[in-house]
Amino acid sequence: MPLIDNETRGVFVIAVTPFTDDGAIDFDSLDRAVDFYFEAGADGLTILGMMGEAPKVTQAESIELARRVIDRAGERPVVVGVSSPGLAAIDELTRAVMDLGAGGVMVAPPSTLKTDDQIVGYFSLVAETLGSDVPLVLQDFPLATNVTISAAALNRIVTSVPSVAILKHEDWPGLAKISALRKAEAEGQRRLSILCGNGGLFLPEEVARGADGAMTGFGFPEMMVDVVRHASAGEMARARDIFDAYLPLLRYEQQPGVGLAVRKYVLCRRGIIASDTLRRPGNKLPPEAIAEIDALLSRQDARLKELG
Amino acid sequence: MPLIDNETRGVFVIAVTPFTDDGAIDFDSLDRAVDFYFEAGADGLTILGMMGEAPKVTQAESIELARRVIDRAGERPVVVGVSSPGLAAIDELTRAVMDLGAGGVMVAPPSTLKTDDQIVGYFSLVAETLGSDVPLVLQDFPLATNVTISAAALNRIVTSVPSVAILKHEDWPGLAKISALRKAEAEGQRRLSILCGNGGLFLPEEVARGADGAMTGFGFPEMMVDVVRHASAGEMARARDIFDAYLPLLRYEQQPGVGLAVRKYVLCRRGIIASDTLRRPGNKLPPEAIAEIDALLSRQDARLKELG
Amino acid sequence: MPLIDNETRGVFVIAVTPFTDDGAIDFDSLDRAVDFYFEAGADGLTILGMMGEAPKVTQAESIELARRVIDRAGERPVVVGVSSPGLAAIDELTRAVMDLGAGGVMVAPPSTLKTDDQIVGYFSLVAETLGSDVPLVLQDFPLATNVTISAAALNRIVTSVPSVAILKHEDWPGLAKISALRKAEAEGQRRLSILCGNGGLFLPEEVARGADGAMTGFGFPEMMVDVVRHASAGEMARARDIFDAYLPLLRYEQQPGVGLAVRKYVLCRRGIIASDTLRRPGNKLPPEAIAEIDALLSRQDARLKELG
Amino acid sequence: MPLIDNETRGVFVIAVTPFTDDGAIDFDSLDRAVDFYFEAGADGLTILGMMGEAPKVTQAESIELARRVIDRAGERPVVVGVSSPGLAAIDELTRAVMDLGAGGVMVAPPSTLKTDDQIVGYFSLVAETLGSDVPLVLQDFPLATNVTISAAALNRIVTSVPSVAILKHEDWPGLAKISALRKAEAEGQRRLSILCGNGGLFLPEEVARGADGAMTGFGFPEMMVDVVRHASAGEMARARDIFDAYLPLLRYEQQPGVGLAVRKYVLCRRGIIASDTLRRPGNKLPPEAIAEIDALLSRQDARLKELG
Repeated sequence: MPLIDNETRGVFVIAVTPFTDDGAIDFDSLDRAVDFYFEAGADGLTILGMMGEAPKVTQAESIELARRVIDRAGERPVVVGVSSPGLAAIDELTRAVMDLGAGGVMVAPPSTLKTDDQIVGYFSLVAETLGSDVPLVLQDFPLATNVTISAAALNRIVTSVPSVAILKHEDWPGLAKISALRKAEAEGQRRLSILCGNGGLFLPEEVARGADGAMTGFGFPEMMVDVVRHASAGEMARARDIFDAYLPLLRYEQQPGVGLAVRKYVLCRRGIIASDTLRRPGNKLPPEAIAEIDALLSRQDARLKELG
Repeated sequence: MPLIDNETRGVFVIAVTPFTDDGAIDFDSLDRAVDFYFEAGADGLTILGMMGEAPKVTQAESIELARRVIDRAGERPVVVGVSSPGLAAIDELTRAVMDLGAGGVMVAPPSTLKTDDQIVGYFSLVAETLGSDVPLVLQDFPLATNVTISAAALNRIVTSVPSVAILKHEDWPGLAKISALRKAEAEGQRRLSILCGNGGLFLPEEVARGADGAMTGFGFPEMMVDVVRHASAGEMARARDIFDAYLPLLRYEQQPGVGLAVRKYVLCRRGIIASDTLRRPGNKLPPEAIAEIDALLSRQDARLKELG
Repeated sequence: MPLIDNETRGVFVIAVTPFTDDGAIDFDSLDRAVDFYFEAGADGLTILGMMGEAPKVTQAESIELARRVIDRAGERPVVVGVSSPGLAAIDELTRAVMDLGAGGVMVAPPSTLKTDDQIVGYFSLVAETLGSDVPLVLQDFPLATNVTISAAALNRIVTSVPSVAILKHEDWPGLAKISALRKAEAEGQRRLSILCGNGGLFLPEEVARGADGAMTGFGFPEMMVDVVRHASAGEMARARDIFDAYLPLLRYEQQPGVGLAVRKYVLCRRGIIASDTLRRPGNKLPPEAIAEIDALLSRQDARLKELG
Repeated sequence: MPLIDNETRGVFVIAVTPFTDDGAIDFDSLDRAVDFYFEAGADGLTILGMMGEAPKVTQAESIELARRVIDRAGERPVVVGVSSPGLAAIDELTRAVMDLGAGGVMVAPPSTLKTDDQIVGYFSLVAETLGSDVPLVLQDFPLATNVTISAAALNRIVTSVPSVAILKHEDWPGLAKISALRKAEAEGQRRLSILCGNGGLFLPEEVARGADGAMTGFGFPEMMVDVVRHASAGEMARARDIFDAYLPLLRYEQQPGVGLAVRKYVLCRRGIIASDTLRRPGNKLPPEAIAEIDALLSRQDARLKELG
């Protein structure tokens, strides 16, 4: 099974966890979603992300999910989110999924970390615990973790923790951080793969600043694939045309807390998953929201047709 | 001078505070900005907002700014932000600006408030201190204040604090809160004016859900005016066409912390203010950012021409 | 196995998790600690508390710990901390430990909860998920959880969630909350058992205000037993004499983050556990701290001898 | 007027702001309080501290308070708290009080600061704005500011911002930080004066670790004076005897939010201020609390008599 590394490029889609109407994991829908993501051009997948429904599945279910997705993904890498308040739990889940063939694991800093030293120390400890052969994705998502990682602290991590391979970049605002990291590399610092999050809300600019792609979720992952491809090739006008067509929906899906329900509704409407159920606790979209999404989808279709 | 009330509708633009290159207040630019906002169709202005440069001006300068803007605005209402950790300072600035002819004052909850009772109690205390004749704008902006006001707490404030006239709505996600408030009114609760913030990032949906307009800043306030007008008239397709044309820039300008520099750069490029200087502490936009904004502006122009 | 309920009184000691020098769980020391707590007069025990080393043990180890302590405790109730970001994990661990004979489980609110409605809704959901036959301890510890539960929200939980049996009260300041709760009960609200935390830092006052005892950790649990006994019997002078003798050390042990190392050092010096090792990540006490504790212990001994 | 510097030692009492029953500043009581603090052995005073009633007085009143206290203090230094969200306000108040003869100003970091670089940058900016001739007290109080300053960041500030003269140390736990700072100085770093806060809750240990004294409030400032004197002279047993006698009340007065009402009640009972009124918003102590304080005072008297 392929491992991620600091040259990893492209689009890693954060996969949804489909449930049946009564809350059981729907493995058939999961298979279809995995196939769909790769058919849309994904280079890899990420599962059990912290903003999804990972906290609603048991540890046994987590491992079942990982096994199914890794098997289905075949030769394509799968990253597994293992963030937890406890190091023991991170270690336990990591061993299990690496044994199953995961391509690496993703860790976000716990919200108790405050100072630069604490943040750098935490990732050193995680890397030491998991071992140098487990490639790490560092999830930098202050809006969710409440931990702000400065460019200085990030550079210290890059230098002192070699197993950190990918930065899942979803600081906001975050464009300056990409530029700072690439500048440090131009001056000799070890390279880091940078894959962007936040649903891709700044994807054209991020790739132009030096990001290697995206690691995030969106109901239309083909947008991310196309934007990354065109922007990487310097075809910015085309990248922006595509991006702009999806932006009204993307903005809507990026609402914190609500977004996952929107994404599942879209994937369900597209016929990829059988039900848009969120496992408890998780709300149903109200009729107003469904009407809003339908309107956005219909306009998006028209716009994409214009674009050709 | 006109006062705001709970029937206030339309667009209140959050005005920038222009500075000269060496950091002095540029009153000529301020006059031009005020004229520009009203020519763009604004129904009122709001100054000294908490996300702007209010903390960088002295109390004496605050009062000078308020005097100049209120005078220039003539018969149009001007709301003044008076949020402060201390009630004495809120009271002092409120008395000064109401004497100058302000249309009302805007208050955000201090970040020390935690429970529903504390939040409701705070606005009761503010209203009691300022007196029932000073109309209040309640700024509901959890991303900046770290205070989440539930729909239940908001309804208690509406019921028990009659001088709260306008909700400056910038909770995120926040569409459900508008629906909840309008539903409570349909069942007999006192009406509140709802003007939306966050740069208008959800403006078409917000107006369709029952909001009365916008109170926020953006380099192209004419967008807000047009979107509110069309969406209020039920012309949603036209509202969305206009909104979508500005959305790529709007998204860029909404980056927290960076946004004001973007807005000033745009207003300066449009010839409205003489300099895009931010008073210290405040960064210059790096060349990458300027190139990004220029690209967005150029595409926006083209798109607006297409729209006609 | 005995269950806790809303008439539970006395002292539930938060048990430490002893490790050997190389980080394995030291079950012999655990047995000795359990015996020691009951010999000191404890009415029950609580394990896997959120401020201890619960996050450093795997789920399998958690269950082993619970089994060992519950068996050793015999007819005395054992509460198990099950707080987790995910409801599925709470459910899984609860079922396991209730099957082993736990007396109830303890749940703290996740730090994402903000409003009264969210807090009340969370405990309703937990209770519904775990079932009405599992008695709950609600841990109210804002300093650690960052969630402030108002007296109003607490009263709503008491009324609407019957399986909440005990309030582990460690709000700070918190005396007024005890008085408010007992007043509501005097006016007809369902009774709640109130056991106090924070190492017992306000124990004489808390019992005098109507608390039923303590649920917390301290290197000298006999202090808590004596203070609760005397204060409950109205012998406040004697309760305070004992409390004051231990207060200098208690204050020192209550330092957040550092306290557990202090407690383990004391228990090790008293011969109850074999090693004061904290599992990684966890620091050794520096020599200055050890000298400070030794000085406090020596003065405490002298003071207790004076008291008789 | 004497200025503070990095050799400042002893006890700076945080002075209360006395009000009459109807909320006016009671300048006669203020004079008596100033005299009382110096008669108790204070080496200086600090006014307008962030945990006190500074936010409840207008800017004009702040300056009146500073003038009165500075005049009354004569040749003894007075530090003035100037913390504010806005740099302009800090600058304005600093100029006013330095002109009146203040000995320096105290600044706490605003809660928006997250990273080491942001914290160091903030104090550089403040120092540059105020000028190198204004000695600064850096208030390190994470419980109130929500900003954690690591030892590393503190050392950077010491090195790069020469006008920072005193650390008002109220991190908790904080003993290790004192040791780290003194160790850095032993290795050549510039000296900082360290005066401890938190009501003196760790004062014997702090002085033994190298602190120069205290800068905090307590109803019995003579405790701080005696503890600092004896502990500085190496008479730790005597220092601890005195400290322990006051500790039960000190613990009670350190309750956040409630403490100031306790302190004013004590100072009023001691005949120093005429009324224990807190200016709005501020609660009256309930009868239970008054009974608790009275009991603590009576036991404290007895204990002090025993001590001689």
